[in-house]
Amino acid sequence: MTKTIDFQTDPQQYRHWRVEYDGEIATLYMDVDEKGGLFDGYELKLNSYDLGVDIELADVVQRMRFEHPQVKSVVLRSGKDNVFCAGANIRMLGGAAHTHKVNFCKFTNETRNTFEAAGDESGQYYICAVKGACAGGGYELALACDHIILTDDGSSSVSLPEVPLLAVLPGTGGLTRVTDKRKVRRDLADVFCSLEEGIKGKRAADWNLVDEVVPNSEFDAIVAKRAQEFAARSKLPSSAAGIELTPLNRTIAGDGSVTYSSVKVQIDSAAGIATIHIVGPADAAPVSTDALAVEGAETWMLRCARELDDAILHLRLNELEIGVLIFKTSGNPELLAAHESFLIDNKDHWLANEILLYWKRVLKRIDMTSRSLVALIEPGSCFAGTLAEILFAVDRSYMADGEFEGDNRPVAAIRLSQVNFGSYLMSNGLTRLETRFLGAPEKIEQAEAKINSALVAEEASDLGLVTFAFDDIDWEDEIRVFLEERVSFSPDAMTGMEANLRFAGPETMETRIFGRLTAWQNWIFQRPNAVGETGALQRYGTGVRGEFDKRRV
Amino acid sequence: MTKTIDFQTDPQQYRHWRVEYDGEIATLYMDVDEKGGLFDGYELKLNSYDLGVDIELADVVQRMRFEHPQVKSVVLRSGKDNVFCAGANIRMLGGAAHTHKVNFCKFTNETRNTFEAAGDESGQYYICAVKGACAGGGYELALACDHIILTDDGSSSVSLPEVPLLAVLPGTGGLTRVTDKRKVRRDLADVFCSLEEGIKGKRAADWNLVDEVVPNSEFDAIVAKRAQEFAARSKLPSSAAGIELTPLNRTIAGDGSVTYSSVKVQIDSAAGIATIHIVGPADAAPVSTDALAVEGAETWMLRCARELDDAILHLRLNELEIGVLIFKTSGNPELLAAHESFLIDNKDHWLANEILLYWKRVLKRIDMTSRSLVALIEPGSCFAGTLAEILFAVDRSYMADGEFEGDNRPVAAIRLSQVNFGSYLMSNGLTRLETRFLGAPEKIEQAEAKINSALVAEEASDLGLVTFAFDDIDWEDEIRVFLEERVSFSPDAMTGMEANLRFAGPETMETRIFGRLTAWQNWIFQRPNAVGETGALQRYGTGVRGEFDKRRV
Repeated sequence: MTKTIDFQTDPQQYRHWRVEYDGEIATLYMDVDEKGGLFDGYELKLNSYDLGVDIELADVVQRMRFEHPQVKSVVLRSGKDNVFCAGANIRMLGGAAHTHKVNFCKFTNETRNTFEAAGDESGQYYICAVKGACAGGGYELALACDHIILTDDGSSSVSLPEVPLLAVLPGTGGLTRVTDKRKVRRDLADVFCSLEEGIKGKRAADWNLVDEVVPNSEFDAIVAKRAQEFAARSKLPSSAAGIELTPLNRTIAGDGSVTYSSVKVQIDSAAGIATIHIVGPADAAPVSTDALAVEGAETWMLRCARELDDAILHLRLNELEIGVLIFKTSGNPELLAAHESFLIDNKDHWLANEILLYWKRVLKRIDMTSRSLVALIEPGSCFAGTLAEILFAVDRSYMADGEFEGDNRPVAAIRLSQVNFGSYLMSNGLTRLETRFLGAPEKIEQAEAKINSALVAEEASDLGLVTFAFDDIDWEDEIRVFLEERVSFSPDAMTGMEANLRFAGPETMETRIFGRLTAWQNWIFQRPNAVGETGALQRYGTGVRGEFDKRRV
Repeated sequence: MTKTIDFQTDPQQYRHWRVEYDGEIATLYMDVDEKGGLFDGYELKLNSYDLGVDIELADVVQRMRFEHPQVKSVVLRSGKDNVFCAGANIRMLGGAAHTHKVNFCKFTNETRNTFEAAGDESGQYYICAVKGACAGGGYELALACDHIILTDDGSSSVSLPEVPLLAVLPGTGGLTRVTDKRKVRRDLADVFCSLEEGIKGKRAADWNLVDEVVPNSEFDAIVAKRAQEFAARSKLPSSAAGIELTPLNRTIAGDGSVTYSSVKVQIDSAAGIATIHIVGPADAAPVSTDALAVEGAETWMLRCARELDDAILHLRLNELEIGVLIFKTSGNPELLAAHESFLIDNKDHWLANEILLYWKRVLKRIDMTSRSLVALIEPGSCFAGTLAEILFAVDRSYMADGEFEGDNRPVAAIRLSQVNFGSYLMSNGLTRLETRFLGAPEKIEQAEAKINSALVAEEASDLGLVTFAFDDIDWEDEIRVFLEERVSFSPDAMTGMEANLRFAGPETMETRIFGRLTAWQNWIFQRPNAVGETGALQRYGTGVRGEFDKRRV
């Protein structure tokens, strides 16, 4: 699995999904092309999915919000007759490297979270209409929807057969959403998760595994009715006209480096480091929401978010040996502030709101990236507002203190804006500054008092906004020594350490999915009982059951 | 490492700890005997520890509460000159099986949690007085104390060198307590956890890694002063006279089965199942707190808790291939209710309070046991109050419905008491019934209205208190089929599933330690970068650094 994975697609290229639009309601059909696997060696039978299927789904969900804002509810259905979705493809999982399994699950989790949040955030609700077997990752798709309707046809069922069948966990949020979203009684959850065949009919509703079980003859009518009811809850204006998410301006070099219009990723394979350089806006901010709509995908705040998102995904999936990501910026912080303020001032407008929500997701994607994240705040940099938020997402930041010899760019400074105090909540439900200052909440007020000031190294250090500040004399050596040391550490220990240190404070369903559930799944994905030669995942489909080392831990 | 591990010890047998008592203040010296390792193949140099050292510590902490209730603060110090504690012994970890590593960490975590809770719960505060290197697990010991004092002698330091040195995590709560208890800023935590040599002097206090750094010349005086200050906070009566924790009445058979006075563990190795049978009290409850003190360790509520605790630990560490634990009870539920009510009515008395707190810990120990837990509620059983709480700790319960042919014992019934509604909080801060009924809180009130009623199968089912009820005709087959299936599943998948389903609802520092942190550590404990032939844990001490697969996940 060494081919380059591309996260960009569009409806003309879809092989696995189709959408029918009907005013406020869209119907999303999952109709996986068996022959359309991202890699060789498996067929996507029974609406099972691989990363390629999920990349298309992520694209559907994203375009739904930007291109089709008139849609207020999305009905998720199967395009096949006898199966809803069989979940992640087992042969794909059995053949995938550990890194691919982990990255695949992370991306699918992020996509589930995105459409789960779409109702509350954007007024686009997802309704899952289940006919046929809805198993494993298929049921996890359903769990992330706002409402699940199961037909009572004597055979359609929901199930999480991973444990009995494959000796792995339902790792795309399944266990967590069963206990924490649907609040299924824990002993019933234990029964459900041990039942290969799943649960159908009335019992599925009694146990709260689905919201309603309806007679097969009334299925379509009730699905249509629920879609209308959810649409009626939405605060989206019916008059909203979408914008087109045009193809990214992107050039990928042979070494994996990528150049976009506002983001440049420079790969240093030998060092194991990638530098992500973000360039602030060059043009003035839009003057009206009409002008914003005309700029569409070209407006800097949206364009930069899309490019950065693609860059992070590219590095995660295609550049596995890059252990450290360095964030740098350049540009005019006042121009950036103008673009950002425009969106904040107009956040009642659907598009301004969507762009801010997208940044929230992109920043969460950074939080969840299991690479060491570093920011270098250099002369001429543009860590202002939204870009300053990156400083609080990274593991460490280094700030240049004062004038640098022979460097005539402006002295390095940070500018906070109101977005740093509430627009971009982390998955733990706190702002990044709240998480940072869990032990010193007075620091948040001190920082807030400095909104829009250019904070040079000394002040930024005093405010606790940067990890270290070094002057011209020490800068280069300190950075070099740090980077050399960082890339020398075990990547696994880094992953574990960062996953623990980044998310202090409260836990939410989302952090539990990425923390507890994912960590246990990753552990199991290493265990011979799952992935060994006689493990259940390898034996699947051979007709021979897995053989297990019975020792408990 | 197949020798049987015994969790029972007493001060006469200690090799690694000694305690000096001085009225309200005790000083606990860690002075590990290098030659006193639990297994062969390593020496416990530099006050490093293995499970044997921790078993003694757990015994110290337990006896402190029961035998020395006049103690209000405990000063933890090193008995060696130049080192506080070097943490878990690396050679021991390097040589240990994965199961032993995981169980070792779980037990040490439980012990840390126990002394961390002793201040708030019992009025026994732990003060850590650090001289010399306090590294890794040594600093994690300190982190679990109520107050950390570090001497400023130019060399004494605190550190978490696991990541840079060993490519594993500080897994005994270290990462979680740094971010969530001490609320160290996350980027500073990142720096600290990457620094092999740790941090000393003023910076350790500035970063809140310790509570105070004091001049070496004033160290002893300040430690003594703080011990008195903490003692002054305690609500423990100075007049409290301890009871003796006499040796358990215990017989271990060759097959691992164990018979205690009130608990009997029957091992079925072929089936992979152990049955834990708890027998309720035979004698009347104490009539006064004086009488309780005279009964001491013999009083049923304390005796049963000690025996059950020992049984669980024995099964965890010595019976690794036992995948299912079945809980059964027998006895007179009214007599049990009388013993329990006596403690509740007298919980202002230190000993009554301690016994209830101990049950809280034992029940948490059950929650944290990574075996499938089942309760069988049979005719003549005694699932009342405290023992009924076990029904809400297990993964599933099966209840016998009505008369069983040829069985003249009383029809199976459950009795709730007030302890089920607040005495025994889980690590998530909720009662087990609150966790069970997260999605149906009205069920808690319905259950509370039935306190002290004998609830037979139909009523218990309606109240949602049991998973399944079967009558005489189906009982045997249903149980047999379930058990056969359960033991056929992958033990790892069970561990992961149970760790996710048991702890719905809020997360606390404690659940984060056992969930997020432990799961990541267990993952790393499987990774070649740590435990492979060229991994850091195996290479430790050879002078050759670990070689790492650089791929990130």
